[in-house]
Amino acid sequence: MKPDNCDGVIRVSAPGKVILHGEHSVVYGKRAVALSLDLRTHLTLTPGGDIVSLDLPDLEIKESWGVDTLRVLVAQLGRKQEQQSIPLSETDTLELCKFLNLPQDTNSPKKLALLSFLHLYMSILPHPVGLNISLTSQLPTGAGVGSSAAYGVCISASLLRFTKMLESDVFIPKPDDNLDDTQLKEVSSWAFRSEQIVHGTPSGIDNSVCTYGGAVNFKGGDISPLAIPPLQILLVNTKVSRSTKALVAGVRERRERLPSVIDPVLDALDALADRAVEVLHQIGSATDSTNIDAAFRIQQELVDMNQALLCALGVSHPSLDRLVGIAQSHGLHAKLTGAGGGGFGLVVVGKETVEGEAVVSCRKELEDASYQVWTTSLGSPGITFH
Amino acid sequence: MKPDNCDGVIRVSAPGKVILHGEHSVVYGKRAVALSLDLRTHLTLTPGGDIVSLDLPDLEIKESWGVDTLRVLVAQLGRKQEQQSIPLSETDTLELCKFLNLPQDTNSPKKLALLSFLHLYMSILPHPVGLNISLTSQLPTGAGVGSSAAYGVCISASLLRFTKMLESDVFIPKPDDNLDDTQLKEVSSWAFRSEQIVHGTPSGIDNSVCTYGGAVNFKGGDISPLAIPPLQILLVNTKVSRSTKALVAGVRERRERLPSVIDPVLDALDALADRAVEVLHQIGSATDSTNIDAAFRIQQELVDMNQALLCALGVSHPSLDRLVGIAQSHGLHAKLTGAGGGGFGLVVVGKETVEGEAVVSCRKELEDASYQVWTTSLGSPGITFH
Repeated sequence: MKPDNCDGVIRVSAPGKVILHGEHSVVYGKRAVALSLDLRTHLTLTPGGDIVSLDLPDLEIKESWGVDTLRVLVAQLGRKQEQQSIPLSETDTLELCKFLNLPQDTNSPKKLALLSFLHLYMSILPHPVGLNISLTSQLPTGAGVGSSAAYGVCISASLLRFTKMLESDVFIPKPDDNLDDTQLKEVSSWAFRSEQIVHGTPSGIDNSVCTYGGAVNFKGGDISPLAIPPLQILLVNTKVSRSTKALVAGVRERRERLPSVIDPVLDALDALADRAVEVLHQIGSATDSTNIDAAFRIQQELVDMNQALLCALGVSHPSLDRLVGIAQSHGLHAKLTGAGGGGFGLVVVGKETVEGEAVVSCRKELEDASYQVWTTSLGSPGITFH
Repeated sequence: MKPDNCDGVIRVSAPGKVILHGEHSVVYGKRAVALSLDLRTHLTLTPGGDIVSLDLPDLEIKESWGVDTLRVLVAQLGRKQEQQSIPLSETDTLELCKFLNLPQDTNSPKKLALLSFLHLYMSILPHPVGLNISLTSQLPTGAGVGSSAAYGVCISASLLRFTKMLESDVFIPKPDDNLDDTQLKEVSSWAFRSEQIVHGTPSGIDNSVCTYGGAVNFKGGDISPLAIPPLQILLVNTKVSRSTKALVAGVRERRERLPSVIDPVLDALDALADRAVEVLHQIGSATDSTNIDAAFRIQQELVDMNQALLCALGVSHPSLDRLVGIAQSHGLHAKLTGAGGGGFGLVVVGKETVEGEAVVSCRKELEDASYQVWTTSLGSPGITFH
């Protein structure tokens, strides 16, 4: 396959992510299982010129800075490549906000996107070089489906590859170059820095899933990738906005008030995620169609039970309950994904294809009820050069 | 108050019951809380004549037997008052079926009602005496709301009082006679015999609640009455028939397959019922309206959580989920009561009266959606002579 970008243009994409099991319980050290989501963020890096420009049409952001100006900024901040393990400091954040002429006290998506980009740009590249980065995404923002992680992953991966090209002076990237484990780890680690800017104290799940793809098994800070087969789903936006912070605080308050009820619910969620990891493995490894059917049935049961246990934590919402009811009426199984209280849900499809009658009619009924629906899949590849 | 029944007529009523917390988990030794339901069964016993007749218009049953015939039957079975602690034997059941000309292998409501009546009649009365018993009920049958227990309680109480009248030769019952603890225990114990005929291996909860009224706290075979204030509710019939046996078996199967998930759910249900007992006590004892409000709010939260945990056991049903959703849309809180899978649900009303706007409109919406609804209350008095 001959790449059509022989002029040093880097094209890279990364998937989004959903939490399949472990919402909220992960906060209490229980297992979470996150899967990549086949709605992708695509980035094109075009080297050259004496300006650095960032084009994010989805966010209606188009900014550019002269390379000279950025050199002054780098000197001022004393930034070096070795700082990879250090998150953006408060002082540097203040300096960058001043440089970008953005308020220090409020966090708009624009501010977070620009801070994150400049931090990665100045940290990864050995010195400022002219380039244009243009990025579009199929992922809705602020939805808990990993749009910020996919953003960080794409920017990190493209800048790391560009650095390599600068070092080797070979400006013909090979799109089928697979990243080795060390390189993937490096991408994920830089994307984590970006996530720290956007989310404060991220768990590291999102940047891992968006980098590695497939599934990620997370417990007590230990993140391990998990090979899984692609799973078809409907991703559903309830269009009800919610505050993740308030939902997490609500569960904490309920647990403080009713520990003897909530603690066993968290234990049940932990055990459920353990079982789900086994079942995902069974779905992937079963060769016999009876075994696959059985594994899918258990997966659907686990989805139902997970939704019920999240209801017991008080984080469902009438819009999510209704979504679950509609899916159920078509013989399908659904749960909230992410923080709950509105936001997003997913309908697992099992062995049936998304073109199947039940899924098509379920999608239609959801859309008629004003939900926004994507027919997509989980477990898609991570960072990919095109 | 002068009784209008100076001719020895005994009028007695007993409430139904609902399970407020502990459905299914009670099977695994966890706590259950059952409350009396203010839909009552009324019985009138009129002594005299040389026939014994039983009139149950709700079941379209009207049977009568000559006292002489019953004397022969008693002699044949060798029945004595001392047999109170012995359930109806298999041999006696066969004999009674033969006498009643009813099939031995199927259990119709008619068969169970007649067997139960004859067993109590022949065991409680010292010897066959002519009387008519007529019984009507506001309780739907086969709904898990204690109609069979209320039946057994009314028949036992009326026959025990009639026995006393025969012994003392005083045929003017005093309707305001409160039964003392020993007498209540005796009524409940005989009603348990009746429940054994109807249900095989009853827990003893139903006959206790229908006898004592109020609430009954049940754990590991230990039944204790619990004083509570009356709680207004909507009792809702989904009109979806279900098999209690199949639902109980379903939970057992799920627990065997997923013990690490289901066991903590059962623990959570146990802790939830513990907390509910405290909250019922708070509602009953709080003198300050702020405290009452707070207690009702926790009660509503416990109802929501209980419903969610029952969903996690797999015993809800779309008709119940929909009922919960409708209640929620009116700011009210609902759960299934009994075995689930359809059957009955209840909407707790909190401090609002059942005449309140939210409750009235909720009732209307439920009825429009083809649910059958009773505006009633929990915690009503047990066995009452009128």
